[in-house]
Amino acid sequence: MYSDTNDPIDYKVKIQVFKSKKGFGPGIAKIMELVKETGKLSQAYKSMNLAPSKGWKIIKRAEEEFGFPFIISEVGGSGGGKSYLSDEGEDLLKKYKLFESELDVEAERIFNKHFRCDKDI
Amino acid sequence: MYSDTNDPIDYKVKIQVFKSKKGFGPGIAKIMELVKETGKLSQAYKSMNLAPSKGWKIIKRAEEEFGFPFIISEVGGSGGGKSYLSDEGEDLLKKYKLFESELDVEAERIFNKHFRCDKDI
Repeated sequence: MYSDTNDPIDYKVKIQVFKSKKGFGPGIAKIMELVKETGKLSQAYKSMNLAPSKGWKIIKRAEEEFGFPFIISEVGGSGGGKSYLSDEGEDLLKKYKLFESELDVEAERIFNKHFRCDKDI
Repeated sequence: MYSDTNDPIDYKVKIQVFKSKKGFGPGIAKIMELVKETGKLSQAYKSMNLAPSKGWKIIKRAEEEFGFPFIISEVGGSGGGKSYLSDEGEDLLKKYKLFESELDVEAERIFNKHFRCDKDI
């Protein structure tokens, strides 16, 4: 069955930055933002429905690719340990988010130009 | 092991346009470009190392989502049938490629601004 052709057309843009392999994309960026927000890596995994063992692998692989740690975890202490971003991780996340947000503006403009102009005029 | 941090950092941008589901991305665009080039759907699948049954499913699903056929195949005749793009398929591919190529220009500019400027200056 063909669907209703009057459904509006939309778009998604996915960005990865990488060195030699899979690199760094929206998933790791989200984990890092949640770590900044909550100070808890376990909390970040939980709100993303991500198994800690899987999350650990994803981050480890990317850290090895980039050559520096993204997240530093301190064990123990009151509240059971705290996680925060390394300086290099903070810098990578900042650049990635700027790349993403500035490209989003251009994507919206270019998508509208080609896909929405017929209806707007 | 951490990798060599002197490896250059690079990026990828993936675009999907969609209505209600997975939509239309680089894979289907490539099939359609090859159909335009060769007039043979089987040839397109072959150069993409794509099983015809899988290719058929991918295209069918997207055609149903958009509500029109992308590729028209004529069976028989000399040379064993010919495939070409429908007018609506041609139009969608054209818009997608313009969206992609114009966004690529912006992505290059924005990526360089945030990720390469330190080294260039």
